[in-house]
Amino acid sequence: MESLKKLKFEISSRSHTCGELRQEDIDKDVVLCGWVQKTRDLGSLIFVDLRDRYGVTQLVFDSQTHPVCFLTAKKLRMEFVIKVNGRVRARPEDAQNIDKSTGSIEVLVESIDILNESKVLPFMIEDDVKASEELRFQNRFLDLRRNCLQHNLLIRDKAMIATREFLHENNFVDIETPQLFKSTPEGARDYLVPSRIHKGKFYALPQSPQLLKQILVIAGFDRYFQIVKCFRDEDQRANRQPEFTQIDIEMSFVDQDDVFKMTEGLFENIFFKTIGVEIRRPFPIISYDEAYSKYGTDKPDLRFDLELHDISEIFSSIELNFIRDVIDSGGSVVGFKLTEDCKLSRKGIDNLTEEFKTIGGKGLIWIKYIDGNIKSSISKFLNDNLNSQIIEKFSLNEGETILIASDAKDKIFETMGGLRLKVANMFNLMDKSDEKYKFLWVDRFPLFDIDNETDNLVAKHNPTAAPLDEFIGNLTEDPLKIRAKQYDLVINGEEAAGGSIRINKRSLQERVFNLLGMDEKNMQEQFGFLLNALEYGAPPHGGIAVGFDRVIMSLCGTNSIQDVIAFPKTTRATCLMSNAPSVVSEKQLNELHIKLKSIPND
Amino acid sequence: MESLKKLKFEISSRSHTCGELRQEDIDKDVVLCGWVQKTRDLGSLIFVDLRDRYGVTQLVFDSQTHPVCFLTAKKLRMEFVIKVNGRVRARPEDAQNIDKSTGSIEVLVESIDILNESKVLPFMIEDDVKASEELRFQNRFLDLRRNCLQHNLLIRDKAMIATREFLHENNFVDIETPQLFKSTPEGARDYLVPSRIHKGKFYALPQSPQLLKQILVIAGFDRYFQIVKCFRDEDQRANRQPEFTQIDIEMSFVDQDDVFKMTEGLFENIFFKTIGVEIRRPFPIISYDEAYSKYGTDKPDLRFDLELHDISEIFSSIELNFIRDVIDSGGSVVGFKLTEDCKLSRKGIDNLTEEFKTIGGKGLIWIKYIDGNIKSSISKFLNDNLNSQIIEKFSLNEGETILIASDAKDKIFETMGGLRLKVANMFNLMDKSDEKYKFLWVDRFPLFDIDNETDNLVAKHNPTAAPLDEFIGNLTEDPLKIRAKQYDLVINGEEAAGGSIRINKRSLQERVFNLLGMDEKNMQEQFGFLLNALEYGAPPHGGIAVGFDRVIMSLCGTNSIQDVIAFPKTTRATCLMSNAPSVVSEKQLNELHIKLKSIPND
Repeated sequence: MESLKKLKFEISSRSHTCGELRQEDIDKDVVLCGWVQKTRDLGSLIFVDLRDRYGVTQLVFDSQTHPVCFLTAKKLRMEFVIKVNGRVRARPEDAQNIDKSTGSIEVLVESIDILNESKVLPFMIEDDVKASEELRFQNRFLDLRRNCLQHNLLIRDKAMIATREFLHENNFVDIETPQLFKSTPEGARDYLVPSRIHKGKFYALPQSPQLLKQILVIAGFDRYFQIVKCFRDEDQRANRQPEFTQIDIEMSFVDQDDVFKMTEGLFENIFFKTIGVEIRRPFPIISYDEAYSKYGTDKPDLRFDLELHDISEIFSSIELNFIRDVIDSGGSVVGFKLTEDCKLSRKGIDNLTEEFKTIGGKGLIWIKYIDGNIKSSISKFLNDNLNSQIIEKFSLNEGETILIASDAKDKIFETMGGLRLKVANMFNLMDKSDEKYKFLWVDRFPLFDIDNETDNLVAKHNPTAAPLDEFIGNLTEDPLKIRAKQYDLVINGEEAAGGSIRINKRSLQERVFNLLGMDEKNMQEQFGFLLNALEYGAPPHGGIAVGFDRVIMSLCGTNSIQDVIAFPKTTRATCLMSNAPSVVSEKQLNELHIKLKSIPND
Repeated sequence: MESLKKLKFEISSRSHTCGELRQEDIDKDVVLCGWVQKTRDLGSLIFVDLRDRYGVTQLVFDSQTHPVCFLTAKKLRMEFVIKVNGRVRARPEDAQNIDKSTGSIEVLVESIDILNESKVLPFMIEDDVKASEELRFQNRFLDLRRNCLQHNLLIRDKAMIATREFLHENNFVDIETPQLFKSTPEGARDYLVPSRIHKGKFYALPQSPQLLKQILVIAGFDRYFQIVKCFRDEDQRANRQPEFTQIDIEMSFVDQDDVFKMTEGLFENIFFKTIGVEIRRPFPIISYDEAYSKYGTDKPDLRFDLELHDISEIFSSIELNFIRDVIDSGGSVVGFKLTEDCKLSRKGIDNLTEEFKTIGGKGLIWIKYIDGNIKSSISKFLNDNLNSQIIEKFSLNEGETILIASDAKDKIFETMGGLRLKVANMFNLMDKSDEKYKFLWVDRFPLFDIDNETDNLVAKHNPTAAPLDEFIGNLTEDPLKIRAKQYDLVINGEEAAGGSIRINKRSLQERVFNLLGMDEKNMQEQFGFLLNALEYGAPPHGGIAVGFDRVIMSLCGTNSIQDVIAFPKTTRATCLMSNAPSVVSEKQLNELHIKLKSIPND
């Protein structure tokens, strides 16, 4: 099967792209097509930079040798589309541009067709664009001509290639799952699609193909994957989109280690093949509880240290009322050490305290070790014994500072985790990291969480995640203590992927659904097919889903998800180019057996 | 970038798959995981066929050497999932199975884990399944364990690989377009998605990314592709699904020839890489009008001949009233010749006449050439002159038969085209073809059609298709006569792909929209962004969309679309496994600002 000759398909209308011609092409007759990027009229010569997605080639129109062409060239304006025939020649030595791959040649144009014209542009096609986001999105067909966005979409393409290549090499099968599926109100809010044939019924667009990928491995596909669109109708924040892309993976006969190893190989391949970065494997692993106590978050950014320490014990006997109150009511005192190169002035500390308050913190205590002495905002409550304990706990060195705060146990780690990020930003610690990309596994997630509105148990991530073996014997006593075979992959403090080893026995799955408040009927209606499938030889299985858009953001070094998606929506879930969503006709609604609720003010 | 070592990812729980062990593995210690396909209890020995998606391996449990294992093996039932450790050994010579790749070895089991049990199956896991479609779809997790469906989904995966590989080699960029887009009531019926944020507004799921792919090439991506889900809410017929997959392709600076060449290369690669079939290029091209007059359809099956001939001229003076009436009122007489090996008895002709009536035909005339004489159902109206004209027109040879009918011009070609297929089926001419796959381009499609309900002009295929150059000067005089740069690819009489060269000037696009009855406001609302984009340097462009599911059906040799989709829906657009679509909560509807219309009888 390898004998089929490669077919490099050439189109008839051009001989080369605008990024292709080099010194060795000199004297060739060529045909180029592209957009007019820039024109310079020097009187008897006109230079035109002709652009396509492969590069830019300099064209020369000469009034002496080709007067008709020259007259046509006079009419060219920015973004006109043209086709030229001409001959490649060397540029004069002093006009060579070594920054451009085509910088040593130019094409003397012998004939030209204006294929299409362009009106005056609403904004310039340049990386450092000045136009508003609104104007850019309305004219996305122009915005996408900018080099940086073209680059991002090419990186996205390469990342898809690297993903599929790696997974196919490892025997994964790409299987499509339906987009018109079933609403499962357990998770986030579904996008619904009214059925015309079944009056009063609705499909839902999948939030993930979770259940279907489990069905596929139960059906015997031991390694499944799909790069798939998923949908969540949530209130949009920055870097959330109503539809997003996920690398969806599931495997049978595996444990957590296998999923980790495979995912690491996948990321290695993606990072190397797209941006040439070799990443270090295996990734470190930290448990959810440890991540919380050390970094105050389940997605710690490990490009910098600033590790949290609980020093309630040390401060247990301090004569400082507000700290004593916190400790007596079961709260904690938590601090972290800034390194020597993070210099905080009094004013710096005041500013930080203000910022700390915006994320729910209260006051901040500082302790510095200067000239062999401890200085602190609470010096008069410290003593030699306390000082030496603190120095030991934080391995405090000359010139270093500790920041400390106290609060209720369920709050202090999160607020200090937030402060940790603010300090890192303030001193730009991210960029001082030895590695640009810090990968981290966080495992042993809680199986359940509490819904703050209803006080009910909800699944922390996924109701089909398997509890760790040591909890299976006793699920009911303290469900919030149960830890699961559930894991996240974190890159530079952002969740890049998440998954779990799944429950593969009906009885256990039913017990979990029970704890989530579902009765028999409920379960059967929503998850009946999964429960059935678990009774017919369901193998041990697990998997992971990679947030593809986020990974591309990492690869492209952008903070905006809209820069890595061809046609993104706004935070109000609108497409500014097409104005979707839009009003539809009464006839359409009638066919779907629905009507609009009367809208008083809109 | 080529230096990264390939990472073949091994999982910890098994050493080999069930399709892997061979003679050279004898004496190896192995670990296998899989499903119990069959057990044979020979008293002191139990044989188990262990299956996974890679194959079947024979396990041996020996009561003498491994009594504990043996006892466990006694409990095994069909579709139990097990993990075994054992040693590979040669089978006795008389027990070797040369039909199986693993047929010369077996594994003597030394330890066994039952990973999961299975209830008694609702139907047997075998290719030639007896269960109803309903039962199979309800239990798709079992149905998909059948070898034939696993095979089809693997072919589908391979076809996706071959597609992406070919297109990437030819510089196409894979770019995702949104699934939540805008309703364009011009085409087929849209699936709608109510917006929560924008009261009373709706997204539509795309029927194809047609407009967006045009935007992408206008944005400078000269070669775009995507394997993408599309949606059409039409009344389901056999082999239609509410969601379907399409290979979507668009290119700039191309003409029809370029699209043909590239598509042929794509199909060559797909057919060779999935099923090893080398297809012949270039594919023949026939115009829409010629296809209609020769085969009575725009998607002729060329695996057999049976070409239609208009013989109105020859019959213009015949004294047969019903034929004279047809001719006098502007109708036609059309016939085709059966080859010598198609023997039609009187009874055969009677049956065929009945079948002809079911597709709208009237009476059938037959003419045979037997022993040098013409015999016919209308012999007494024939004469030597007529006979010799007929013999010449059809190159009629000894033993051959002609079938003839007459009817109005817009009907006779279609009904005779239908009869042509019935005859081919009756004599199984498809299977006698020299090539298993007959590819054919049909081009020069009409730009417009008439909507039978409203008598309005509608786009025959696509309102952005460019008229052929010779029609551009005069679009209004007889719009139905306008032929477009619109083409279909037909394989064995099925439409496999369709596309066009697009309009790239705003003025021409507006004139076409005008003819389709759209006013300025209408156009701007529905297609404003496309019209705008055409004014900013839109290059010449065109493309094609390949019906992926249909191509997979061809590759798999199945007549059922449900055999090439993991989770298909019924013709009533229901998923029998999950029961989607389903009822949703009042809360969900309220959030979407819609309510159900009261349903009197449901």
